[in-house]
Amino acid sequence: MAAENLLSGAAPVAAVLPAGGSGERLGSTTPKQFCALLGRPLISYTVRALERVNWISDIVVVVSLENIETMKSIIKKYGHKRITVVEGGMTRHRSIFNGLKIFPESTLSSCPLQKPEVVIIHDAVRPFVEEDILLKVVLAAKEHGAAGAIRPLVSTVVASSADGSLDHSLERVRYRASEMPQAFLFDIIYQAYHQCSDYDLDYGTECLQLALKYSKTNAKLIEGSPDLWKVTYKRDLYAAESIIKDNLSQQVCVTTDMKEDAVQFGFLLHKTLKSEVKVKDISVFLYKNDNHLQNTFSGQCYNFICINAEKSDIKETQQLIDILENAKISVLHPVVLISVHLNVSENMSFSSGMEELAGIKEFAREVKKKNILVYGLLIHYNKLQETINSAAAIISALIKDRNPELIGQLLVA
Amino acid sequence: MAAENLLSGAAPVAAVLPAGGSGERLGSTTPKQFCALLGRPLISYTVRALERVNWISDIVVVVSLENIETMKSIIKKYGHKRITVVEGGMTRHRSIFNGLKIFPESTLSSCPLQKPEVVIIHDAVRPFVEEDILLKVVLAAKEHGAAGAIRPLVSTVVASSADGSLDHSLERVRYRASEMPQAFLFDIIYQAYHQCSDYDLDYGTECLQLALKYSKTNAKLIEGSPDLWKVTYKRDLYAAESIIKDNLSQQVCVTTDMKEDAVQFGFLLHKTLKSEVKVKDISVFLYKNDNHLQNTFSGQCYNFICINAEKSDIKETQQLIDILENAKISVLHPVVLISVHLNVSENMSFSSGMEELAGIKEFAREVKKKNILVYGLLIHYNKLQETINSAAAIISALIKDRNPELIGQLLVA
Ligand SMILES: [Mg+2]
Ligand SMILES: [Mg+2]
Repeated sequence: MAAENLLSGAAPVAAVLPAGGSGERLGSTTPKQFCALLGRPLISYTVRALERVNWISDIVVVVSLENIETMKSIIKKYGHKRITVVEGGMTRHRSIFNGLKIFPESTLSSCPLQKPEVVIIHDAVRPFVEEDILLKVVLAAKEHGAAGAIRPLVSTVVASSADGSLDHSLERVRYRASEMPQAFLFDIIYQAYHQCSDYDLDYGTECLQLALKYSKTNAKLIEGSPDLWKVTYKRDLYAAESIIKDNLSQQVCVTTDMKEDAVQFGFLLHKTLKSEVKVKDISVFLYKNDNHLQNTFSGQCYNFICINAEKSDIKETQQLIDILENAKISVLHPVVLISVHLNVSENMSFSSGMEELAGIKEFAREVKKKNILVYGLLIHYNKLQETINSAAAIISALIKDRNPELIGQLLVA
Repeated sequence: MAAENLLSGAAPVAAVLPAGGSGERLGSTTPKQFCALLGRPLISYTVRALERVNWISDIVVVVSLENIETMKSIIKKYGHKRITVVEGGMTRHRSIFNGLKIFPESTLSSCPLQKPEVVIIHDAVRPFVEEDILLKVVLAAKEHGAAGAIRPLVSTVVASSADGSLDHSLERVRYRASEMPQAFLFDIIYQAYHQCSDYDLDYGTECLQLALKYSKTNAKLIEGSPDLWKVTYKRDLYAAESIIKDNLSQQVCVTTDMKEDAVQFGFLLHKTLKSEVKVKDISVFLYKNDNHLQNTFSGQCYNFICINAEKSDIKETQQLIDILENAKISVLHPVVLISVHLNVSENMSFSSGMEELAGIKEFAREVKKKNILVYGLLIHYNKLQETINSAAAIISALIKDRNPELIGQLLVA
């Protein structure tokens, strides 16, 4: 892999993730890094974004004393690896310093961490960081000693005079917003923290500035993507949740039973979803073909449509759920499973229909405990293409919303 | 009214809304101000935010030539008043200048606008501006000649050297982000635009800076709320849509028919919604009481729950829809109407149940053309409080999501 070649050599890359902040700016009592998005704390998304980068050897998460147990339980629940939890300080800089100290000091501890050549510093509240920008800052840090992601300014920056009037405004093109991730040769940033003043530790916010002031290192500035933004306000939580839902709804897997009707409907649905809704990939295959399903799981598909020609049969759906559970596919994200039923019996009474429906509700409630959201969809044949279009629209809506309150409902296309 | 007293005097306040920007930063071909949120263009929300402030006499919207017809059709469709559409220039400053020119020049035109004492300049892509901050900048402009909203910086601002390295970072506390709205004594900003250079008009972005440079006016800086942020990226559209949905779901109106069962269920639902879901107000009343309904409409309620003890009766729902339509309540926002049915007949066959359901789907599809989203909710009595809780959760989800693809569905609590 390119990244591994570029980073070849014995010295590892580690990451420090300061997560000691309070929730003040969000107007919430929960610090923003612990706010739940689709049921999972924001910090778990950020940890996952670093954890999946295999050339990062250790991730040090720095949290305030009262959140250490919370953080440990998050690590356990979501199966995060290569994480060390460290207690933070009173300020951001003191927390980062605590995170850095763990490396030289860890030879004394029971769980030693190798001192890295390069250390990444990232924010717990920037969950959408990609491997690409991480690699760029690390390589630039190797060359220049320090590097950080920047973005163009969205607003003009102004300086105010003592009386609250405009003193001057900065020319927007000459300045940039300093974002995260940043990366440093470990010795450079560690030395800077050792030498800096209490005033720096208490009132400073910018690691690049410490490297400049105390290690005479002019950091390389690297243009990042808009996705690096910091989740700061409530609206940012809304935005983050929508982005996560959007990402999860890109890929759909369609399974059908052996009946000809189901296979035919599956292919038509496939075609319609592909042309009318943005879905990256759809696999139509027979239900028992586990190998194909396993491939789909490794492709990070979080949406499953099971088409049954027979009347509602929970057994087959249960089988898929077992496979999903074994693959641990729903540990990190809620999985949507839409059970589509063709040819609903004409002679069934409404009350027995209702009873069956109540059964699906009960079933869905149980399965939700595994983070799998089950919805039913009855196909009420009328005009075929119209019905397919309607089914595709409903499926697309269910996948995009991922609404836990509507599980177990039987919708009609 | 306080604002009117503070602003007393013959000279009016006008607003100029530059909306000539392109959609580049959003990665979309539609300029962001014309992107739809819940089906309605963003700029219409911003226009509405200014229009509802009754002491703003005229609103000048500046759009590029190719969007003039689009803008006029938006004004017509959403019934906006006191709007003048003006053609923009090549840059933001040139567009604002065009907007300002309309006042002194309008004596020559067929539709004269009175030259205002104070002019507000706001962005088309900041839809959540409140009367409070508008009043503050206008009063400060009357006193100081110019005023603008500011916000604390979210990120540290850095200056880069020619080789793309960090030159220095700004001390975050000394600087602010300049946001909108801004307000000016008309003559001050108009004179500044007349005197400024082509370079200013082509490369500048900051009106406060023009007032400083050419009219020697140090603008008063006024701390605004986070809601003033500029919709810039795709994530901001997500955030804005979530905020709008959140605002629309704050108030619910419950209506019941005359049957005792329905009234009782309505009161229980009322209680549960009030304690478990955040709803500002719920009115339980008999169905025909139009006066009460009219009061609810003026209170900006966009969610209606109609409880029927009888089996699905579209006539009563139709009556409510007619009232909603007459009140033009759904012109600006999609209205959610949930038709709740108690005591569904036990003996109905599933296929006749399906037929009735198909009728509701057809009905919902028609009503959607009026921007009213109809959903059905069957109450399947089992344990009463459990059913009420389930109904409240489903209702709350439908109201919050406002999903047009799920209209006409019959959900079961
Ligand atoms: Mg932070
Ligand atoms: Mg703008």
